[in-house]
Amino acid sequence: MKKCIGVDLGGTTVKLGLFDETGRLLEKWEIPTRTEQGGKNILSDIAEAILDKLKEKSIERSDVAGVGMGIPGSVMPDGHVPVCVNLGWRDMNPEAELGRLLGGITVRSGNDANVAALGEQWQGCGKGCNSIAAVTLGTGVGCGIILNGRIVAGSRGLGGELGHITVNRAETEVCNCGNHGCLEMYSSATGIVRLAKRRLAASGEPSALRKLENITAKDVLDAAKAGDKLAEAVVDESMDWPALGLSYVTHVVDPELFVVGGGVSKAGEYLLDKIRAHYCGYIKLSEKKAEIRLAALGNDAGIYGAARLILED
Amino acid sequence: MKKCIGVDLGGTTVKLGLFDETGRLLEKWEIPTRTEQGGKNILSDIAEAILDKLKEKSIERSDVAGVGMGIPGSVMPDGHVPVCVNLGWRDMNPEAELGRLLGGITVRSGNDANVAALGEQWQGCGKGCNSIAAVTLGTGVGCGIILNGRIVAGSRGLGGELGHITVNRAETEVCNCGNHGCLEMYSSATGIVRLAKRRLAASGEPSALRKLENITAKDVLDAAKAGDKLAEAVVDESMDWPALGLSYVTHVVDPELFVVGGGVSKAGEYLLDKIRAHYCGYIKLSEKKAEIRLAALGNDAGIYGAARLILED
Repeated sequence: MKKCIGVDLGGTTVKLGLFDETGRLLEKWEIPTRTEQGGKNILSDIAEAILDKLKEKSIERSDVAGVGMGIPGSVMPDGHVPVCVNLGWRDMNPEAELGRLLGGITVRSGNDANVAALGEQWQGCGKGCNSIAAVTLGTGVGCGIILNGRIVAGSRGLGGELGHITVNRAETEVCNCGNHGCLEMYSSATGIVRLAKRRLAASGEPSALRKLENITAKDVLDAAKAGDKLAEAVVDESMDWPALGLSYVTHVVDPELFVVGGGVSKAGEYLLDKIRAHYCGYIKLSEKKAEIRLAALGNDAGIYGAARLILED
Repeated sequence: MKKCIGVDLGGTTVKLGLFDETGRLLEKWEIPTRTEQGGKNILSDIAEAILDKLKEKSIERSDVAGVGMGIPGSVMPDGHVPVCVNLGWRDMNPEAELGRLLGGITVRSGNDANVAALGEQWQGCGKGCNSIAAVTLGTGVGCGIILNGRIVAGSRGLGGELGHITVNRAETEVCNCGNHGCLEMYSSATGIVRLAKRRLAASGEPSALRKLENITAKDVLDAAKAGDKLAEAVVDESMDWPALGLSYVTHVVDPELFVVGGGVSKAGEYLLDKIRAHYCGYIKLSEKKAEIRLAALGNDAGIYGAARLILED
């Protein structure tokens, strides 16, 4: 049986997975991402890691169906990556380049959030669904849209860039992207902390958070779960915005299922219940609402999705 | 060469078009929509109109590739229509029913806004584009999303229901759908009039609109074009909302092109320039912005799109 490799290229580590053709993960390993010197060693490091593994496992190059790769930036349909801030890349075609370094093995690539969404749809909590949107609430807010089992990358690579929809035009602070009031400003880990600090400063309302020096999103979520009223209000506000965002996705492509992952989602069903309650309020045209589930594959979603780029039906 | 029929089923008239297999419109005609008695005659009227035309043109039933039909309601993937308020229908499968009335001719159906979008993508101003979103600013606000040349109907039929995204959570008035602050409340013909009345009532600012008894959207648009400051502010506000809506579509599926049609769009490039200006302000992640064009097929978009349901590649 042929094998394939899934690569999840992150700013700190590269995760790799060896899969069989049925999509079974046989082995996974990691290497550091060397971002120095404009990230010029990253692809050769990946090629070396792959070729070493093939040698170790006595897998012939001809027995490899291909290598899929998730990249933390926009990927054009031809594999071109205009810019990849975290890796120091600019105007590259990593797909073509890695293929060359691997002596002609087929390489396919996609944006990392999209690829992770594909992983969840294929082997994660979206298994059996043709269309899902997977939202990651982490340091930022990422999203991938899968329709008919395929990534919707968009004509300018903006497909699923839900973190940067303008949800609050009244916002005065500026987002990393240069806009005001992006979803990411409220619902990422950073956003939750920002909202908490704002609320703490706006009133003298008592809260367990006042005792802490450096508030983290986890502090806010834990305090909210423990019944701290101010923290509860922060979490409720910060989860209202992604609910609004998911309602937009519903009114554009109406996926069967929403998947929520990322560090913030470790707060579990408590968090999801807040999103669900707000989400249902925004959808009046249909009695049936899309399900919202926690992501199932965690950090492995990226390598699964990358493998799926090769193993697509 | 085989023929096909496109049917655009509206609340007042049914438009029909006879096409050849290359998508050339050979003839078009209309019949009234008899909505009385729960719309029970509508499909038999359509069947009769089609069979009469085939007879008149001496076209054998076996020479008809099929009949496509746009329906003013949600259409499930199996053709089921849960409810169609304008026609008085509930729990029907018009696709199956019309096929039976036509003695087994293949019938395919879709939501009318989606089907019209498909028409624009196929033979209208979206010709040559694989992915478009077509927005109709009329009595209401409709939208159809086409990706890879196919309608995105959504798993609950909510694909492209852009008229009912919540753009203004601060709105106190209620939309037809039961929600508050839907796009349709601001950018439809009715919405423009509502905004104008609101603004007229809120201040004593002079405006040509004050002389009119029954203000229409056209009055507001004409006054704005003529330089009436209050009317200009109304149009600017009412076109900011669809621009925001288009920015959401971009951050979800990122189509190549946006097409704007419907009665309100008769204000032409003046209107589009307002949408474009606001739209570009909401997109910071990409230098390249999607084009926004006026619809080209007018009232024929529906029959073209319906024919395309049959003539899909």
